Amino acid sequence: MSTIANDTFLRALLREPTEYTPVWLMRQAGRYLPEYNATRSRAGSFLALATSPELATEVTLQPLERYALDAAILFSDILTVPDAMGLGLRFAAGEGPRFEHALRTEAQIRALRVPDLERLRYVFDAVASIRRALTRDGVQRVPLIGFSGSPWTLACYMVEGQGSDDWRQTKTLLYSRPDLMHHILQVNADAVAAYLNAQIDAGAQAVMVFDSWGGALADGAFQEFSLAYSRRVLASLRREHEGRRVPAILFTKGGGPWLSEMAESGADALGVDWTVNLGAARARVGSRVALQGNLDPSVLFAPPEQIARQARAVLDSFGPIAAGERVGHVFNLGHGISQFTPAEHVGVLVDTVHEHSRRLRA
Amino acid sequence: MSTIANDTFLRALLREPTEYTPVWLMRQAGRYLPEYNATRSRAGSFLALATSPELATEVTLQPLERYALDAAILFSDILTVPDAMGLGLRFAAGEGPRFEHALRTEAQIRALRVPDLERLRYVFDAVASIRRALTRDGVQRVPLIGFSGSPWTLACYMVEGQGSDDWRQTKTLLYSRPDLMHHILQVNADAVAAYLNAQIDAGAQAVMVFDSWGGALADGAFQEFSLAYSRRVLASLRREHEGRRVPAILFTKGGGPWLSEMAESGADALGVDWTVNLGAARARVGSRVALQGNLDPSVLFAPPEQIARQARAVLDSFGPIAAGERVGHVFNLGHGISQFTPAEHVGVLVDTVHEHSRRLRA
Repeated sequence: MSTIANDTFLRALLREPTEYTPVWLMRQAGRYLPEYNATRSRAGSFLALATSPELATEVTLQPLERYALDAAILFSDILTVPDAMGLGLRFAAGEGPRFEHALRTEAQIRALRVPDLERLRYVFDAVASIRRALTRDGVQRVPLIGFSGSPWTLACYMVEGQGSDDWRQTKTLLYSRPDLMHHILQVNADAVAAYLNAQIDAGAQAVMVFDSWGGALADGAFQEFSLAYSRRVLASLRREHEGRRVPAILFTKGGGPWLSEMAESGADALGVDWTVNLGAARARVGSRVALQGNLDPSVLFAPPEQIARQARAVLDSFGPIAAGERVGHVFNLGHGISQFTPAEHVGVLVDTVHEHSRRLRA
Repeated sequence: MSTIANDTFLRALLREPTEYTPVWLMRQAGRYLPEYNATRSRAGSFLALATSPELATEVTLQPLERYALDAAILFSDILTVPDAMGLGLRFAAGEGPRFEHALRTEAQIRALRVPDLERLRYVFDAVASIRRALTRDGVQRVPLIGFSGSPWTLACYMVEGQGSDDWRQTKTLLYSRPDLMHHILQVNADAVAAYLNAQIDAGAQAVMVFDSWGGALADGAFQEFSLAYSRRVLASLRREHEGRRVPAILFTKGGGPWLSEMAESGADALGVDWTVNLGAARARVGSRVALQGNLDPSVLFAPPEQIARQARAVLDSFGPIAAGERVGHVFNLGHGISQFTPAEHVGVLVDTVHEHSRRLRA
């Protein structure tokens, strides 16, 4: 077993005792960092950056140089899997992702297959490269998180072809031809499971399933079209690697209504957005899963003293952890960090989380 | 007291017995109707349509000619109040609303005042005109709903100047200068209360507060910056007019986490979006308030038999109403109807709601 200098993050996910609350930030390697923008310029495009193991490694490590973050997360895109299925991922300047070959016909849907993982080799190479870069003299600084979009979230983009306010085409398919939607989701679930297992094999020490659009679904439809397939992924994951448990986090943006059902999904931890009261969420999930979240990323636009106050409020709302209690909290934002965040504000947040949570434990 | 031929909607909001579940649809007078588009073309622009009492009356009544809807809702815009405050509402072609004079400085914010209601006379004239058009031989077909944006939702547009994914400027102000945000919200609350009371005086028989962006707020911030000011509005409303109770509906999109607190807001009914399980919501609010909702508007893109199935599922999830039980359900969508909805699908929905709920009561 490799040695990890700081494994607080993994222990919190597994609801083991920690001295403080670990913190990392969704999209921590991103456009709010000047050094990220410099690397991205050198790469020429987002996709060139994401598909280069060397450059992905460089940007993954950048936030760790600035801040005392407790985890690194693979720099990649959530749409790599459908791209490898042949849908043709493109990023137009100033716009979000688009697929050249969105799923428009039954024939296209029936032809969907779990992609050859060799087409995603660049991702696994990045994982291995980041692991090496995190390690010096046999000691790894912090754990590395791998990730994927959820089967439902991938299906949203695959059917719609791009982001959407209302996912009209996706939901039209769902309500008109649920059989075809289930077919897409089955293929996606098998592909996501294989993809995450290959990331684990390559060295990811925790994995996160981003169900970014599960919250767009109606109650009932969420359980049938999103949660059932996340559960299928989670059930297929390799949960031990290098002699260590590999925890899995499930994050449904807007998933507050369904936390109790999500706690039975097989995930070790649930991500929660900022609409959720952490104390109430903790009461609902009990000791079944750890929780990750949930500061509103907009708080980072405020002055430092206000950031510190709001971060303490999140920690206080989770509440104290009694000795021997099997609960865990990982501090994070309730969504990705904004590109407009002042970089120095992130340091205030990270340091406040560490200091205040140590005080709460003392 | 005027006579209303069909007052099922008002009785359901007041948790009195009804023979079936009444139904109306947010944005029922809208772009999915060819006759609406014809009137809008004649008007020349959305604002010309919304500010003409005669044309607003015409489009308000259009959906009632096609469908057996149980209520009419004033055709207007949620941003009329800030426009009357002098912010300069504009609709650019193909875009959402914009304010020419968004709140950018402390001086602008300190200068905000409850507007002279004479500047909103066209709205009250429309209410009176619609009431007349709904009435024949002294009998009114269905009740008329008045409405306003919530103080928080108005503030979002007033600070941001337009719609937003993340309300960055609005939240920056909220977290950096909560004193200024509270000042805006106080003025807005007083303005909204005066506006709704004038609609009631003009003939609105129920009122709805649209808190479209309350769900963008973090737990804690929602209570402080949205709910507190909706409560202030609700406490100031005239609740009796023409010898009849005037029920008030509060709808926070994404407000599922806070339903129990919203049930103490002074509203007679709460609108809920489609992420909420109606049966669970009913258990949470008890007999304190009626519920309104909550079909996903995307269901209306599906074939008729699927629409009927999903509508029945919403009614079934609310569950049966025992004799003498003080609960109420008004069927609605969880959001405004989409412009891409096939008009004939709306008839299927309305008829299914009536038929199935009669069966459930029998």
